[in-house]
Amino acid sequence: MGMTMTQKILAAHAAVDSVKAGELIMAKIDLVLGNDITTPVAIREFNKIGADKVFDKNKIAIVPDHFTPNKDIKSAEQCKCVREFAYDKDIENYFEIGQMGIEHALIPEKGLVVSGDVIIGADSHTCTYGALGAFSTGVGSTDMGAAMAVGETWFKVPEAIKFILKGKLNSWVSGKDLILHIIGMIGVDGALYQSMEFTGEGIKNLSMDDRFTVANMAIEAGAKNGIFEVDEKTIEYMKEHSKKNYTIFKADEDAKYSKVIEIDLGTVKPTVAFPHLPENTRTIDEVGDVAIDQVVIGSCTNGRISDMRVAAEILKERKINPKVRTIIFPATQKIYLQAIREGLIEIFIEAGAVVSTPTCGPCLGGHMGILAKGERAVATTNRNFIGRMGHTESEVYLASPAVAAASAITGKISSPEEIF
Amino acid sequence: MGMTMTQKILAAHAAVDSVKAGELIMAKIDLVLGNDITTPVAIREFNKIGADKVFDKNKIAIVPDHFTPNKDIKSAEQCKCVREFAYDKDIENYFEIGQMGIEHALIPEKGLVVSGDVIIGADSHTCTYGALGAFSTGVGSTDMGAAMAVGETWFKVPEAIKFILKGKLNSWVSGKDLILHIIGMIGVDGALYQSMEFTGEGIKNLSMDDRFTVANMAIEAGAKNGIFEVDEKTIEYMKEHSKKNYTIFKADEDAKYSKVIEIDLGTVKPTVAFPHLPENTRTIDEVGDVAIDQVVIGSCTNGRISDMRVAAEILKERKINPKVRTIIFPATQKIYLQAIREGLIEIFIEAGAVVSTPTCGPCLGGHMGILAKGERAVATTNRNFIGRMGHTESEVYLASPAVAAASAITGKISSPEEIF
Repeated sequence: MGMTMTQKILAAHAAVDSVKAGELIMAKIDLVLGNDITTPVAIREFNKIGADKVFDKNKIAIVPDHFTPNKDIKSAEQCKCVREFAYDKDIENYFEIGQMGIEHALIPEKGLVVSGDVIIGADSHTCTYGALGAFSTGVGSTDMGAAMAVGETWFKVPEAIKFILKGKLNSWVSGKDLILHIIGMIGVDGALYQSMEFTGEGIKNLSMDDRFTVANMAIEAGAKNGIFEVDEKTIEYMKEHSKKNYTIFKADEDAKYSKVIEIDLGTVKPTVAFPHLPENTRTIDEVGDVAIDQVVIGSCTNGRISDMRVAAEILKERKINPKVRTIIFPATQKIYLQAIREGLIEIFIEAGAVVSTPTCGPCLGGHMGILAKGERAVATTNRNFIGRMGHTESEVYLASPAVAAASAITGKISSPEEIF
Repeated sequence: MGMTMTQKILAAHAAVDSVKAGELIMAKIDLVLGNDITTPVAIREFNKIGADKVFDKNKIAIVPDHFTPNKDIKSAEQCKCVREFAYDKDIENYFEIGQMGIEHALIPEKGLVVSGDVIIGADSHTCTYGALGAFSTGVGSTDMGAAMAVGETWFKVPEAIKFILKGKLNSWVSGKDLILHIIGMIGVDGALYQSMEFTGEGIKNLSMDDRFTVANMAIEAGAKNGIFEVDEKTIEYMKEHSKKNYTIFKADEDAKYSKVIEIDLGTVKPTVAFPHLPENTRTIDEVGDVAIDQVVIGSCTNGRISDMRVAAEILKERKINPKVRTIIFPATQKIYLQAIREGLIEIFIEAGAVVSTPTCGPCLGGHMGILAKGERAVATTNRNFIGRMGHTESEVYLASPAVAAASAITGKISSPEEIF
């Protein structure tokens, strides 16, 4: 029986001819990733099993991005623990603040992932790299600790849902709307422990940034991973960013899928996920009157240069509603620099937005924009669970950068079309 | 008997011909200031005395700058309390994040203070505005609350120390070095409840930014206020920034001072205050080998455009030591914008610095750069008390932006001359 994209990558890394859904396998890891919150726990596990060397100092990446710049003494101690480990073990890809960015934007940008890789990260949004045709998934800190020592880990081979994309997104509609649309359709457990494999002629019309956003939120449908077929854009991206050798895996023609879903990209509308689940989606015309207190544009989901450009297009020569705190986070230092050079940061500040250094910040209620009781935010982030961005009685509405920027101006959830 | 500058301002605001040191007076207030930490307490006092209207909605300024963008739920609730009060009372000068900056940089920039004013603020560094020839001083939140209701408050008229400045600072020596030099000389209680009045022909060689830095740290010598004689530069600054009428008060020739101290600016060297008091100063040649973990450039003391320029001059085309987290905070959105336009922010990011939105942040151990146990920071901030920037076993070394930037490159406390 044929294999899916994911199954073929796993088989290759388990050094077997074929694997099938449900099977337990041990696979070699090309990159083990951790952040400032999960790595300290992983280090304890690493030490507990008596490891003293990491399996490969070039195949571990540590990015202190969550509560950095250190938000309090506890986070300072966590970062110190991580930093000392990184220096002690001579970890090649330890990224100090100032050199860094949000892990899931930084890792592809630094060329640390290419198609065909197997990557695990102690962070649920590690699935982002599926945009490049890699198998990447979030694991617990214990698995990260063990993998840093031995360079392999076990997986239960997942089934897959095949998404066949056709056509082209309309203007002001982005990868974010597409993935919200999908999660609204299949639910937050609609792809539980499955791969979401994206194929079809519509892929070529999605930018790499759109694909990162879509793959990033596969976990929000419960998926083990999200993965895109490799095309010319993928190859171009990899050539520009990476020196690693890549392998392209295509699903077998007779691969078995638990479900096949066709989506005409031209039918996707700007979509907003209402509290308190990403599946509570409404298209922008169904939103009604929702006044807001805060807008957050950034995160591993939507903090890339194209996101900054869209936000700037809307905010240019406009003023943000004075009652809406608007916080914009370029996802990496490189994106920040590029946004300065393109004049985008000037536009944001002139409009009345806060521009922050890259950090996960408010997305997970960390710092830099926490909500009080009763407050509402439109955010380009990935989760709107109860209390996710602050008080348990606050609300988060997930949207695209275009909708978020438009809402910052009007003071309520709005379509960009209301502005132009 | 003649009066000092401060005494003349107080007499005018008490509507009496003269006052003398030690006397208790009631004086009218031109501006009452608060931040996100102190204003909630002031609001409680305001409500407790049964006030329902503020004395003048144009003479109150509220700047949520300390723990903003909200660092946690508690700070979010405090900001919400402040925001609701500001909207309810129609406070003209409420500055939301995105429109704001650090209060003591923002208030002069917005033209809310001119010479001859009496200003109180529920923040100890309110003394900053003495740079413009105003009497300004920090008060408790209770006094702030009452003053918002009645527009006046009591003062014990202070004595004064007269500083006669001569000559000119050498290159890489700034107002920060001057005030650290003075505090090193007279001690942290050297001017207890006195005015520090700055006069002499050397004043004209100090930029307004240098004067703000000097006046800002008057409190670190225990002073009630620091105040500069008004000159052409002051008038130029006021004309550029403010539409308010100003009055120039000069000390009487026969004014009595508790002490007169002459300082030849040409003799001041780059100066660093060692832990854990601002009076523990050493000149840069006496510093020895002090390895550091973090550099902070910014704050109400040194986050102005000239500070950004000096830092950029040193960091340009250089790389920050990878072991030194370097966090740069322009003090206001206007300064941030100006720094972008001058290419300074690009220099910082290329060098490997974190650039943050304006916030008091790490200065008071708030957020955005807290120190772990045993860590050392060089900071352009104003206080290096035990635990000020984080763990009680961390250390803060106060210095100028020039020394801080040079130290970021070398990884230890360094003179800019080591770099060039």
